[in-house]
Amino acid sequence: MSNVEKRAGRTSRLTHVVNELCKSEHGMLSWLARGGRVLPSRDQVIEAAEALRSVLFPGYYGISELTPENMRFHVGATLDRVVGALQEQIKRGLCFECDHHGPECPGCSDKAAFITAEFIEQLPRIQHTLATDIRAAYLGDPAATSTDETIFCYPGILAITYHRLAHELYSMGVPLIPRIVSERAHSLTGIDIHPGARIGERFFIDHGTGVVIGETCVIGAGVRIYQGVTLGAKSFPLDQNGHPIKGIERHPIVEDDVVIYSGATVLGRVRIGRGAVIGANVWITHDVPPGTSVTSPA
Amino acid sequence: MSNVEKRAGRTSRLTHVVNELCKSEHGMLSWLARGGRVLPSRDQVIEAAEALRSVLFPGYYGISELTPENMRFHVGATLDRVVGALQEQIKRGLCFECDHHGPECPGCSDKAAFITAEFIEQLPRIQHTLATDIRAAYLGDPAATSTDETIFCYPGILAITYHRLAHELYSMGVPLIPRIVSERAHSLTGIDIHPGARIGERFFIDHGTGVVIGETCVIGAGVRIYQGVTLGAKSFPLDQNGHPIKGIERHPIVEDDVVIYSGATVLGRVRIGRGAVIGANVWITHDVPPGTSVTSPA
Amino acid sequence: MSNVEKRAGRTSRLTHVVNELCKSEHGMLSWLARGGRVLPSRDQVIEAAEALRSVLFPGYYGISELTPENMRFHVGATLDRVVGALQEQIKRGLCFECDHHGPECPGCSDKAAFITAEFIEQLPRIQHTLATDIRAAYLGDPAATSTDETIFCYPGILAITYHRLAHELYSMGVPLIPRIVSERAHSLTGIDIHPGARIGERFFIDHGTGVVIGETCVIGAGVRIYQGVTLGAKSFPLDQNGHPIKGIERHPIVEDDVVIYSGATVLGRVRIGRGAVIGANVWITHDVPPGTSVTSPA
Amino acid sequence: MSNVEKRAGRTSRLTHVVNELCKSEHGMLSWLARGGRVLPSRDQVIEAAEALRSVLFPGYYGISELTPENMRFHVGATLDRVVGALQEQIKRGLCFECDHHGPECPGCSDKAAFITAEFIEQLPRIQHTLATDIRAAYLGDPAATSTDETIFCYPGILAITYHRLAHELYSMGVPLIPRIVSERAHSLTGIDIHPGARIGERFFIDHGTGVVIGETCVIGAGVRIYQGVTLGAKSFPLDQNGHPIKGIERHPIVEDDVVIYSGATVLGRVRIGRGAVIGANVWITHDVPPGTSVTSPA
Amino acid sequence: MSNVEKRAGRTSRLTHVVNELCKSEHGMLSWLARGGRVLPSRDQVIEAAEALRSVLFPGYYGISELTPENMRFHVGATLDRVVGALQEQIKRGLCFECDHHGPECPGCSDKAAFITAEFIEQLPRIQHTLATDIRAAYLGDPAATSTDETIFCYPGILAITYHRLAHELYSMGVPLIPRIVSERAHSLTGIDIHPGARIGERFFIDHGTGVVIGETCVIGAGVRIYQGVTLGAKSFPLDQNGHPIKGIERHPIVEDDVVIYSGATVLGRVRIGRGAVIGANVWITHDVPPGTSVTSPA
Amino acid sequence: MSNVEKRAGRTSRLTHVVNELCKSEHGMLSWLARGGRVLPSRDQVIEAAEALRSVLFPGYYGISELTPENMRFHVGATLDRVVGALQEQIKRGLCFECDHHGPECPGCSDKAAFITAEFIEQLPRIQHTLATDIRAAYLGDPAATSTDETIFCYPGILAITYHRLAHELYSMGVPLIPRIVSERAHSLTGIDIHPGARIGERFFIDHGTGVVIGETCVIGAGVRIYQGVTLGAKSFPLDQNGHPIKGIERHPIVEDDVVIYSGATVLGRVRIGRGAVIGANVWITHDVPPGTSVTSPA
Repeated sequence: MSNVEKRAGRTSRLTHVVNELCKSEHGMLSWLARGGRVLPSRDQVIEAAEALRSVLFPGYYGISELTPENMRFHVGATLDRVVGALQEQIKRGLCFECDHHGPECPGCSDKAAFITAEFIEQLPRIQHTLATDIRAAYLGDPAATSTDETIFCYPGILAITYHRLAHELYSMGVPLIPRIVSERAHSLTGIDIHPGARIGERFFIDHGTGVVIGETCVIGAGVRIYQGVTLGAKSFPLDQNGHPIKGIERHPIVEDDVVIYSGATVLGRVRIGRGAVIGANVWITHDVPPGTSVTSPA
Repeated sequence: MSNVEKRAGRTSRLTHVVNELCKSEHGMLSWLARGGRVLPSRDQVIEAAEALRSVLFPGYYGISELTPENMRFHVGATLDRVVGALQEQIKRGLCFECDHHGPECPGCSDKAAFITAEFIEQLPRIQHTLATDIRAAYLGDPAATSTDETIFCYPGILAITYHRLAHELYSMGVPLIPRIVSERAHSLTGIDIHPGARIGERFFIDHGTGVVIGETCVIGAGVRIYQGVTLGAKSFPLDQNGHPIKGIERHPIVEDDVVIYSGATVLGRVRIGRGAVIGANVWITHDVPPGTSVTSPA
Repeated sequence: MSNVEKRAGRTSRLTHVVNELCKSEHGMLSWLARGGRVLPSRDQVIEAAEALRSVLFPGYYGISELTPENMRFHVGATLDRVVGALQEQIKRGLCFECDHHGPECPGCSDKAAFITAEFIEQLPRIQHTLATDIRAAYLGDPAATSTDETIFCYPGILAITYHRLAHELYSMGVPLIPRIVSERAHSLTGIDIHPGARIGERFFIDHGTGVVIGETCVIGAGVRIYQGVTLGAKSFPLDQNGHPIKGIERHPIVEDDVVIYSGATVLGRVRIGRGAVIGANVWITHDVPPGTSVTSPA
Repeated sequence: MSNVEKRAGRTSRLTHVVNELCKSEHGMLSWLARGGRVLPSRDQVIEAAEALRSVLFPGYYGISELTPENMRFHVGATLDRVVGALQEQIKRGLCFECDHHGPECPGCSDKAAFITAEFIEQLPRIQHTLATDIRAAYLGDPAATSTDETIFCYPGILAITYHRLAHELYSMGVPLIPRIVSERAHSLTGIDIHPGARIGERFFIDHGTGVVIGETCVIGAGVRIYQGVTLGAKSFPLDQNGHPIKGIERHPIVEDDVVIYSGATVLGRVRIGRGAVIGANVWITHDVPPGTSVTSPA
Repeated sequence: MSNVEKRAGRTSRLTHVVNELCKSEHGMLSWLARGGRVLPSRDQVIEAAEALRSVLFPGYYGISELTPENMRFHVGATLDRVVGALQEQIKRGLCFECDHHGPECPGCSDKAAFITAEFIEQLPRIQHTLATDIRAAYLGDPAATSTDETIFCYPGILAITYHRLAHELYSMGVPLIPRIVSERAHSLTGIDIHPGARIGERFFIDHGTGVVIGETCVIGAGVRIYQGVTLGAKSFPLDQNGHPIKGIERHPIVEDDVVIYSGATVLGRVRIGRGAVIGANVWITHDVPPGTSVTSPA
Repeated sequence: MSNVEKRAGRTSRLTHVVNELCKSEHGMLSWLARGGRVLPSRDQVIEAAEALRSVLFPGYYGISELTPENMRFHVGATLDRVVGALQEQIKRGLCFECDHHGPECPGCSDKAAFITAEFIEQLPRIQHTLATDIRAAYLGDPAATSTDETIFCYPGILAITYHRLAHELYSMGVPLIPRIVSERAHSLTGIDIHPGARIGERFFIDHGTGVVIGETCVIGAGVRIYQGVTLGAKSFPLDQNGHPIKGIERHPIVEDDVVIYSGATVLGRVRIGRGAVIGANVWITHDVPPGTSVTSPA
């Protein structure tokens, strides 16, 4: 077979594969059915989240040559860039779910501008809460030598930072974007916090790999959690089609100052009372009274 | 000591360290002994895997400005680039293990071209199976608001996508490359699936961090697994030198529609019967009959 | 409202947010209080760690076109670049903790140069130890087809490589930098080894996600550990202010040739005797005699 | 003076400089007066021009691994990207000059979409004309060994390629963008062709550095020009304010098959007749009859 | 010859070439003789020059999404980065010429900080002068449609911008750096202005390729110059060793409002009187009285 | 018209344009006719040329942190990379012209390896000659303050460096690649030297914009040339088809120690005798006796 024939064969096969991959009939490419509106860009969302982290902790991430004198210039320039990028992605997220037809969607555009502005104004408050988390990390880990070390290195700090940003967007009704942010944190730290979870101040997760915190969790102030802890759903009711019913409150409530050691599993809408201590690898599916200490049977 | 002397000292020390690091006598740099054939490039393999993901889910990754109209151009251009890059890495993988001496190896080159072409033709089939996985993720998680969200954000979808690609290459006898792909997914998601594992359609891993699925696992259709689940080997026989015997079937068989909750451990060539439910943190080393529900003693 | 007014409003709000974020009064930006000395750059530290890995395993990472002939040039050039970058970051780490005032700190600069030079000279020794780890990985996993595969793909090898580098810097008294290195490995592999842990040769972690090894652990030679294992502290004494007392030996001692299976938890300054085997999911808070096999009650 | 005082001084000086640079009162930042509409991005325009060159000469620029089989994918993907980028820049160019107030300008947006679509459809015609230029370069230079060499290396080919693109945009009334394209060619080649110049097919500039071709030049087919040739304006009338009157036809008409040797200067609306030959360094301010040979007096 | 022998041969030849290239005996690598102090980085200097251009013309270069509202943040952040980078390069330039021995040079470091601070404070003045140049370009070229077009596209504006920056550094006694800046402009525009030349306001070079303006030129206000003009030295006296004597004033003085057309050559310390007009290709080696028009003999 | 219809229209138009651009019938895409062998990559050639410059002038380009101690590592690593990249491009150049059919061409591959090895061995000799050029630049320009400044900044040094590399490749019979190198220098400096020109040592071009040196020029030692000088062909004989006959010696011979001032034009196979001085803007088409001074009639 000549080279030309070989190539011709290769091309027609490649073209065939491309056509197959671009078919929408197997239902996976659902965006095609919605008129092909532009989807959010994961890379842009992740870049925005990293930039937000750098302005929440000026000097620790991003430009490390920051001085007290040039901070405002750099924080301002970064924040300004984030505003533009985030607004575009929020618009895409909104547009993706809205009923409007066609590529242009002024409603989503306006709403995205409004939400972005509101969100940006919450940053100082979020920073303030993060300051309490950092303090908690320093106090909660004998290996921590300074608060700076916790900001620089602790995966738990990264996870709670991204969560507080994602939760804010989630609360404002932004689709898709908060989940992209929280899954980024999950990928980097092994800590999986659903953006819907409500978490109080002075929150500390040590080590963190394998931690799962579900969508409808409510966590008080001063809670400390170790690696491998699951705050999950016990089971979930199905509708008449056998599909899970969305949006039911199905995850634990954890009150203030609770400590949950590594590998413990708490399932269902149970309440762990204030100051309770849950031992490692313990399995909980019922309420735990305040101040109780639950340890492994072994 | 003068600056010149200082530098001279520093140089001779650096040269000494370099020479030590490049010594092969401690046996680590085994590729030196094989005539120094060029090793695969992890970065190239990872880039190819990401590009493949972008053509399997056009519009969700990579170029996010994709429209129904320009899809074929971009999918074709990306796929064409992948073909070249992947073929080179497969050749290196094959060449690394073959007995041919010297830098040029026409046999491996031809075989790599053949394997790559075959592999590319499987992509539509792989995409079709992934569509069932996505559906399973949407149905299996009450927190999922759309199939798009699962494609965009779910680590379990990333893991099974990379696994289906890696397993295809593994089945074609490509060395090293499939493992690089699966370890990339492991690094990003905390889900460690050996490329050898055989996994049916409609597979869903939720959260996923800490999941381990061993080389000789056989998993049916419609299986759902949660974070921290191990499908591992119980122990492995050693040969007369005390080395583990490679290639023995030593991991579980999981039949259709089984659910395994978080932290459960299943070890050895046991069979989990169709429709069985394995509770969280449960420890299994024997067969489980179909339809059985195994829960934690606590 | 005119466009100009809209803009003016937006600007003043942005400026307000920037000013709030740059305030130091809530105590988080503690570097401001120290005279604004330049902090280490995480990116630079991570880049240096990756370059060090590429010279410890020439041909496997970084430039993959390495041949036996050009190795010395590339290893030398990379190492030379690392020396400069690492010295700068070590200086920043030292300077961050020292009492000197003002931006220039000749003492830290000299000390960083000395430490960097010492550190570089340890690389051949570290490489030698890593060669024993690689051999252990190949022998310890039936799925491993070659030592090359373990170097290329095994997260346990990545984790122990970064740990041995971080531990060396930790032992020399470098602040912050070792922790940045070990958290990088944690993020990539899910294996969290504190730089303070002392670990003997022939060390192998399989799969690894969720492993935690605490600061004051002492681990002998030939130890093998699986995913989800915790070698942690049981609890820690507080000082009169209720703060944890730093630096107390509070993690396990694991003697030579111990195997610890997945999900096991060992807490406190206990001693696991030579050759002991700790079963999966087992919970240990007391000494285990040499040669003992401890298995799950289930 | 303390470090803190030094820094404070440095900051206030920096802030002062920034404020001065951002003042608009000296009239330079005229875009401020127009409501701050976003200006075109030179980098984006240049990138689009390079991409257009790569689709006009598939295989010679950009992706050099092009084969007859994968051409359509790559040309399509590149062109699709260009359409988006160019349309945005054309919109900015139009918006910059239009009277509409405020940041959004649907009229310019629609016009940009229309112009871009029209422009893209002209590319095959432009490619066809460039094929005649390449043939002319090959025939006109004894040093040319193949037409491929002229495409790859000849600055004259680069200059006429960019000119034909810029002239098309100029003819469609796009502001700013064509000039950015032609100045890019000027920077790369030293050949300065105003986008307004009308140039026939089979055009060849050899060497080219220092060539200047003015806005209202009209050049026939088969013209050949050497380095340092000026086709300029003699002088230009001023209006009552002493400002040059814009848009008057003031540059030469050069008929078919004229040759103009290096360093010759032709000024004003003169006509160089068909087949005339203008010698090196000659100075022309009057009409030259067809077929005439004008040589230097020396 | 075996592959191993081939490689060995290739390596030893490569090593030989490297050793030869690194020899300093043929005197080219003069920096070796000076103790190997670190040379300036051309790339860093060029990057700083581009950043300076972007703050002198905010909105036209660099970040094109600039709005009146976010200008100060971005200009401040860019300028702050430039300060650091430029100071480092100026220090290297000073250090390169100073007599101090060894790698550390506190004198040069202090001087560089002082010069950089002074230089930055001149930027508003330089911007003000450039505003007059832009106005001159708009008024001097009938093809210019707006001042914005001249800022965006005119090589003459780029050249004078870089010259005014380079001349400021030259006047402050900085070695090497100004010349790197002016040669960058030369490469981009074909306009070669020595940093030593003194040039008044409202200066305009049209087209510009081939313009040469010598080190000791003095040019008044409102001067207009076209492509290919040389303001050079006639000849230069040699010292007793036959080497040219450095630093003699040997280039023309051009008074206010002179126009010099394309290709004209003015050589030696002659004076072109106020308002004189020098025709294209004219050759001048004597003074020209004010108001005179000198035209080509042809 | 609906959005879907609009899109459909746009797509079909885009597809049409792509098909037109990829047609080969107008003869421009001549590589298609040759079986689509992969063309050289301009970017790769340019990158190789820059790397070669950095090893010819270690410390001045590329890595500026070079010290006498680490030079050999960096020069070796860079040179090794160049060898691989250059050999690939030379192979493509050879393959492009050879008669072999099909994508694989072992003859060209072997020849490229041989030529590359020979070429690399010439580098020390080329460096030695460049050292004489640098000395000539320093002695020939009163504005030069050090030889370092000429290496760093002088376009004439860049041009002769690239020429000496390109001429070496040209002499070894490599197609296309030398011309790509010399046109890169032309683009950066405005100096156009054909790779075929033979040029002696101590060569200096000052300013240089607009200089043209033709393919068959022979230039002696110690020659000095200024901007705008042309050493060109007077005219060229045509064959019976009216095409120029390739390869005839048609450019000037310039003997040792000649000086040619700015704008002078020397055309045809004339001989400029040893030590002659050609004045600015002079026009020469006949031999000039040794020692003669030719000046402008004006």
